[in-house]
Amino acid sequence: MTTMLPPHLSEQDLTHALDAFRAALGPEAVLADEDELREFRDPFAFAAWDDYTASAVLMPQTVEQIQAIVRIANEHRVPLWTHGAGMNNGYGGPAPRLTGSVVVSLRRMNRVLEIDEECAYAVVEPGVRWFDLYDAIRAGGHKLMVSVPDLGWGSVVGNTLENGVTYLPTGADMASSCGLEVVLPNGEVLRTGMGAMPGNKAWHVYKRSLGPSPDHLFMQSNLGIVTKMGVWLMPEPECYMPLWLRVWNEDDLHALVETLRGLMLDRTIENVPQIWNTISFASVMSSRALWYEGDEPIPDPVIDRMARELEVGRWMMRFALYGDESVVDHRFAKVKEAFGRIPGAEVWGEKCSPDAIAGLENPHERVQGGVPNLDINQMTGWYGGEEGGHIGFSPVARLTGDDAVALRDLIRGLVEREAGLDYAAVLIPTNARSFIHITLVIFDTKDEAEARRAYDACKLLVREAAKDGYGEYRAHLDFMDLAAEQYSFGDHAYRRFVETIKDAVDPNGILSPGKQGIWPKALR
Amino acid sequence: MTTMLPPHLSEQDLTHALDAFRAALGPEAVLADEDELREFRDPFAFAAWDDYTASAVLMPQTVEQIQAIVRIANEHRVPLWTHGAGMNNGYGGPAPRLTGSVVVSLRRMNRVLEIDEECAYAVVEPGVRWFDLYDAIRAGGHKLMVSVPDLGWGSVVGNTLENGVTYLPTGADMASSCGLEVVLPNGEVLRTGMGAMPGNKAWHVYKRSLGPSPDHLFMQSNLGIVTKMGVWLMPEPECYMPLWLRVWNEDDLHALVETLRGLMLDRTIENVPQIWNTISFASVMSSRALWYEGDEPIPDPVIDRMARELEVGRWMMRFALYGDESVVDHRFAKVKEAFGRIPGAEVWGEKCSPDAIAGLENPHERVQGGVPNLDINQMTGWYGGEEGGHIGFSPVARLTGDDAVALRDLIRGLVEREAGLDYAAVLIPTNARSFIHITLVIFDTKDEAEARRAYDACKLLVREAAKDGYGEYRAHLDFMDLAAEQYSFGDHAYRRFVETIKDAVDPNGILSPGKQGIWPKALR
Repeated sequence: MTTMLPPHLSEQDLTHALDAFRAALGPEAVLADEDELREFRDPFAFAAWDDYTASAVLMPQTVEQIQAIVRIANEHRVPLWTHGAGMNNGYGGPAPRLTGSVVVSLRRMNRVLEIDEECAYAVVEPGVRWFDLYDAIRAGGHKLMVSVPDLGWGSVVGNTLENGVTYLPTGADMASSCGLEVVLPNGEVLRTGMGAMPGNKAWHVYKRSLGPSPDHLFMQSNLGIVTKMGVWLMPEPECYMPLWLRVWNEDDLHALVETLRGLMLDRTIENVPQIWNTISFASVMSSRALWYEGDEPIPDPVIDRMARELEVGRWMMRFALYGDESVVDHRFAKVKEAFGRIPGAEVWGEKCSPDAIAGLENPHERVQGGVPNLDINQMTGWYGGEEGGHIGFSPVARLTGDDAVALRDLIRGLVEREAGLDYAAVLIPTNARSFIHITLVIFDTKDEAEARRAYDACKLLVREAAKDGYGEYRAHLDFMDLAAEQYSFGDHAYRRFVETIKDAVDPNGILSPGKQGIWPKALR
Repeated sequence: MTTMLPPHLSEQDLTHALDAFRAALGPEAVLADEDELREFRDPFAFAAWDDYTASAVLMPQTVEQIQAIVRIANEHRVPLWTHGAGMNNGYGGPAPRLTGSVVVSLRRMNRVLEIDEECAYAVVEPGVRWFDLYDAIRAGGHKLMVSVPDLGWGSVVGNTLENGVTYLPTGADMASSCGLEVVLPNGEVLRTGMGAMPGNKAWHVYKRSLGPSPDHLFMQSNLGIVTKMGVWLMPEPECYMPLWLRVWNEDDLHALVETLRGLMLDRTIENVPQIWNTISFASVMSSRALWYEGDEPIPDPVIDRMARELEVGRWMMRFALYGDESVVDHRFAKVKEAFGRIPGAEVWGEKCSPDAIAGLENPHERVQGGVPNLDINQMTGWYGGEEGGHIGFSPVARLTGDDAVALRDLIRGLVEREAGLDYAAVLIPTNARSFIHITLVIFDTKDEAEARRAYDACKLLVREAAKDGYGEYRAHLDFMDLAAEQYSFGDHAYRRFVETIKDAVDPNGILSPGKQGIWPKALR
């Protein structure tokens, strides 16, 4: 086995560090065998690529162990890379940005510490998955719902820290977290918000405190290791109504988005919708070979046929209403009327009592009802390889018809022309004023040339979209630096500001070097 | 005239610095006469006290001038203290924490830079007052409402940066700002969020970007001078319904709060209510001498008489509904039914079209309708002095009946027993899970002994409330350090973390030394 060493460290240096980690955590909490490390690689990377490979993995179980880890890392100058569950697939999974980093996996810190029925929140450790939190709420008999992402296997904390999207009203504007506990690079334990006062019971109900609020400094960040987080829950409404909107023309996207913004701004639609194009839906429901044999991108007439036969239209939006039944009825009528002005558009759905959500057949309707699942993960098989994968290119834009169409044209053009791939898009308005354009660049992970083409396409997209003023909300390991490079206002004043903080709070640069383009001084 | 010098600076040093400021900004932008400086003192401080006095005031008009100011301040080691409009009354007004600081008043940077009807937001400079933004929206014919605080004379940016409360649904959870431009202590211009990408149009519609989000680091902060801010606006609803809830027993507070939390958690009430006690209302509507001659706190039977005669009950809550008329009707019936379970409780109000809000007689109904005014400022005359004032003690608590009653008992007990003052309270649930208990400690600013007693009472409150785990959301200059001192978890890990950032980004400690208890290295 060839150990991947971090920069400036010899094999002996690393051995000494691992010995120290073993002494502090116990030998079973330090993984260093090639076999053990394999599951901590980017699941969608081509197998022979050895970028982004860890030298070891640590599995702490307590805050004190994390403090010991950063102490040892500082002594031995070992770069760490943290994850919650490590399911950040599409952006690199559990793999570190810097090859040779020691991964700190928080999977064993998986306790739901508190569920507060009165004020409707939970407090979780970073290894708690959406499945775990959902189960804990059910097991406690709480009439509360958790806003979940599309795949339930991820960490509540990890997903939140990556600015991950969830879909209930409590997830709108990514506003559901409240109050963090953080182990800083120097080993101190910081509590944010009201948690900075001993015995304060408002830690997880009020988002600020006296003085500056650092919480969002720890999002997409290498400034600390979050060890506890409050997450706001939603009381079960009287009525839940998952809904679908389908339009048949590619250019109906403009009217769809314009109508949607009005309905979100006036709070008729309170949750986070998703707008899928035909190819995205087809990738979940079928494989490409069923529709088209050619190597070039699927042409429009075939997409139209897929739209009809799969009954997903050229664009289909999932969304939901929550509340008292009479309010839901009013809003459904209003939504139906508003979208009904788009020729050929259809809106449908059925009301559901909260008790019945877990039994709904459609996984999207369960996700929007707060019931985590993994059903839509199968999209990765689109290109027919044994092991499909995808990487995401995910810029943010104003929630306007003009921006939606401009971004679609830009991305579809580049994906098809330059990469020769199909354009799979999911648009997610995380609030009433903006949306994230998730571009699912799907490829066969066993086909090196195709994988390389997918990566190259994403890098081109990052550059070209930035020229038109569109920037990524999150970036894959392989183009984190490039994506960050685009945020260059004031000759990179933002990056310099974060680097200044980084150098001050983590002078040895031990925490997640390179995370979102922020490198410690020695590696810049 | 005696110039108040900052620490470590001679009169000559200051003169040189002021000369440099005059050369950079023009002489009319540098105020240093005693008369000119008077309006930049704490308006409610006893006149002879000379704490918190500025040595000069600068009135820049452009970002470039602010860059010049921080450059000169670094060269001459001059401490600055920034305000927007400087109407932070109750917490020290425009006065600096550190005597001798040069105040940077942003009152002349008062342009509304943009009103975006499509995505419902405005972009403002820091000198723009709520009145100005409201006027600009009206003048532009926009069908948009701005979430305003109780007094319209303050700065939109200044109020927001102090975590100030506003009352429309867009103001809930203090979530209405989006995207900052900041002059850093080194003179660089930082744009947060998507603004860090040149030409990005999502700056004021999406609150994060790639990497850590520093926006909330600039709230209640001395880490930068904010020069532009986006503020989300609300499209005019079909129907606006300001409402009142009145209860007659002091202990009805428990049931009121319990009921309210349920109605906020399920989004029946979407705005930020205010719950006033009898004395608070009486202070706006009358003067104390009308009710009671004694020096000791007004006893309960007299409060009951005030409650009856002023028709404000022992507690009265203002709140409002916004939306389609049928939804408002449903919610009004629901609210009436829910609060109706409290014996003797009454709920009333009248529906209003958005066009008619400015004509409403009751200032509270105008505030919740987004029409700024100054009507409730008259509360300061309670103790009958020519020039009344108040200071605020403002802890945060969980929005539960138990917490509301416990905090009331604690604060009322101390205010009455230790300070001999009346207990004037306004409880503000800024979200569905927490509230701020604004304690209005009202006194005659011409009576030194009474003023001293009010200050002493607040300091006692800070200490005693912290023992029970209640911390302030904002603090007066005179007890900022004390309030910050209570946030001591991890042997002051929070303060040390912010100080570390402060030292890194502002090594000369020029920006607002002492703000919320954060001092630069040389002054710790």
